Amino acid sequence: MTTATHSPDSTPELMLRLGAQAKTAAAQMAQASAAQKNQALRSLARLLRSNVDALAVHNAQDIERAQAAGLAAPMVDRLRLTPQVLETCAQGCEQLAVMPDIIGEIMGMKQQPSGIRVGQMRVPIGVFGMIYESRPNVTIEAASLSIKSGNACILRGGSEALASNQALAALVVQALEEAGLPAHGVQLVPTTDRAAVGALITMPQFVDVIIPRGGKGLIERISAEAKVPVIKHLDGNCHTYVDDPCDLDMAVTVTDNAKTQKYSPCNASESLLVARGVAADFLPRIGAVFAAKGVEMRVCPASKALLASVPGATLADATEDDWSAEYLAPIISIKVVDGLEAAIAHINRYSSGHTEAILTRDHLHAQRFLREVDSSSVMVNASTRFADGFEYGLGAEIGISTDKFHARGPVGIEGLTSLKYVVLGEGQVRR
Amino acid sequence: MTTATHSPDSTPELMLRLGAQAKTAAAQMAQASAAQKNQALRSLARLLRSNVDALAVHNAQDIERAQAAGLAAPMVDRLRLTPQVLETCAQGCEQLAVMPDIIGEIMGMKQQPSGIRVGQMRVPIGVFGMIYESRPNVTIEAASLSIKSGNACILRGGSEALASNQALAALVVQALEEAGLPAHGVQLVPTTDRAAVGALITMPQFVDVIIPRGGKGLIERISAEAKVPVIKHLDGNCHTYVDDPCDLDMAVTVTDNAKTQKYSPCNASESLLVARGVAADFLPRIGAVFAAKGVEMRVCPASKALLASVPGATLADATEDDWSAEYLAPIISIKVVDGLEAAIAHINRYSSGHTEAILTRDHLHAQRFLREVDSSSVMVNASTRFADGFEYGLGAEIGISTDKFHARGPVGIEGLTSLKYVVLGEGQVRR
Repeated sequence: MTTATHSPDSTPELMLRLGAQAKTAAAQMAQASAAQKNQALRSLARLLRSNVDALAVHNAQDIERAQAAGLAAPMVDRLRLTPQVLETCAQGCEQLAVMPDIIGEIMGMKQQPSGIRVGQMRVPIGVFGMIYESRPNVTIEAASLSIKSGNACILRGGSEALASNQALAALVVQALEEAGLPAHGVQLVPTTDRAAVGALITMPQFVDVIIPRGGKGLIERISAEAKVPVIKHLDGNCHTYVDDPCDLDMAVTVTDNAKTQKYSPCNASESLLVARGVAADFLPRIGAVFAAKGVEMRVCPASKALLASVPGATLADATEDDWSAEYLAPIISIKVVDGLEAAIAHINRYSSGHTEAILTRDHLHAQRFLREVDSSSVMVNASTRFADGFEYGLGAEIGISTDKFHARGPVGIEGLTSLKYVVLGEGQVRR
Repeated sequence: MTTATHSPDSTPELMLRLGAQAKTAAAQMAQASAAQKNQALRSLARLLRSNVDALAVHNAQDIERAQAAGLAAPMVDRLRLTPQVLETCAQGCEQLAVMPDIIGEIMGMKQQPSGIRVGQMRVPIGVFGMIYESRPNVTIEAASLSIKSGNACILRGGSEALASNQALAALVVQALEEAGLPAHGVQLVPTTDRAAVGALITMPQFVDVIIPRGGKGLIERISAEAKVPVIKHLDGNCHTYVDDPCDLDMAVTVTDNAKTQKYSPCNASESLLVARGVAADFLPRIGAVFAAKGVEMRVCPASKALLASVPGATLADATEDDWSAEYLAPIISIKVVDGLEAAIAHINRYSSGHTEAILTRDHLHAQRFLREVDSSSVMVNASTRFADGFEYGLGAEIGISTDKFHARGPVGIEGLTSLKYVVLGEGQVRR
């Protein structure tokens, strides 16, 4: 029996080697044909389905270790690679495979007064580094987006999911090789040494952008220490504003969905603003819905007065901190505002810039809200829960950017690309 | 007589005040109508023309001080606000005024399976900080781009141009106010204290992006210390590759232009690669042109053999450093390569990623060069000197980005904007 041995690299040496390999692979990935990339994605889908049992064995190691370490049950659940989770991953790969290839697309080609024609070609960014926590299916999401976008990537998953991630990464390598693509196109960091993260975010010679997915603390630390650009996904303090005039049946349905369809996602509404003119009609109705679902309401004095008589309502006085809070829980802050201007001002002051919705019948109010609210997604008459790469038709999502620089909002393939200028001439010179 | 006094702010206090004012102004600039912004640009053009004499008085102070300080004549020349320089600035403002306003444009609106319609709206970045050196006309270029793009900006010009810049900034403020726009939309840092730069690049709460224009040392220092994204313009080691087959008359004309039309711009070619198959015909011809213009040639052995007999040629053996050099001077490195693959490999190894041109008759070679060369501008049969915002039809240019992130190549109005998602529904909820 042979025992697999690790290379004797120290972690910094290991990361430099991964970086150099990624950079070499990136040049090949950038030149890959659409057919090759799509073949790799379809192979990956097939391998995920045909290895459900083998993956379960590796996954069980992670789960046993997590349970032995006393990880909370919801955290253990996030580790599970169930057949359903794997089928979703496989379908995601197949969906990407049928999407058009945007790499090499040339747009906006226009002739200039000098006679040269100038346009822009969409090209991969190069190498991205992804740092994420427990859920191992993120390995497949990141790998498939990397393949489709013609980038190379270095993936650093959570240490508690290492066995699962290594098993998944081996399938990715097999899929790449079946399609004639470089095995180093997608690399998983094979160590749980925390120094790997520090190295990954400080190799500008090899890594073009870092995408962290995880808690706010992780992302702030990475942003502070990175020597390359970071696509940041900070908190989602999303607002739903019920305007005057508004269809109140619709407003109840949409506000309910925005808060309660799921409590943990970043695009769930954490704060409800209600125009004074509709508050007396609207608040008791939505309050009854929240009361029935056990949603605690952190209320301003005006909303308190209107909600006090709702049977079973859990009310608390909102503090200044509530207006900025991302609860990710059955809690919502509620405030009565004078109208559109006050709502926009409140949002632009307290929001994290993720997603905000106005529910209104007034066209001018809708237009002003879209234009003036400074968030990555602005919505009219829709649930904030729609802020998502799949719902937006991006095919997949590598994260949601709350930055304004480069990519903003759900980041799909396009966010992993860059535009270079293409100039076509017939011997023109500058005068 | 009253003596103008500075506020008692320390530099850090001053910068925080400018930052807070910029952020407030940015919200107003973002909402400004196209008509207001264009009126401000036309007012600025008028004010520049009607204040030629007054500006000359302020400019003379800077020039006298620079001459007294023993500044070299070319540096002093860069400070001069001649009537011609001012007329060019005025025309630039007028050109921007007639360009379409891209702020608020909504693109790609498509219905998704849930029924919501999703598109993206172009919005200003917010506040940009610009750090630049001697030429005071950059003050007007930056101010006019800021106005058109609906951003606010904080400008930090060279200390040697402070009097000129303050006089120009006063006209910008007047133009903003004539159009009903906030006076703090464009602010010039009124101190030469170097601590102002350190403060400007570390105020993420107020400043969204920093654009440095100047030497490589300045830009590297700013990139290393900034706490906000930087649009970097590092060096321009641009290549012209003469392919086989190629129209050699065209190649001589374009190569000559790329190197000698001006020596100092970043888009001048610093390195010439020649396919072996055309080298014996081409190199003596371009060598004679360079010899006649006093351009020193740093040559590989193969090109040395072909250039040795050119009368008056100044030849030197190229060192490894020459392949990476940005001379900004009458010097060019020359290498004979086996063909397209070798040219692309050389460029991707040594180039600074600014601009590269292939001169060819071969369609497949042209396509591969465009796709595989990893630079911000890639050209076929045109002079690298065209890599410029005006020549590309951007209306103006705030800089040339050698980064891949956010903006790449010449950066015009679009590079100062961001896209936010817009979602339109009729009460849809997430299932």
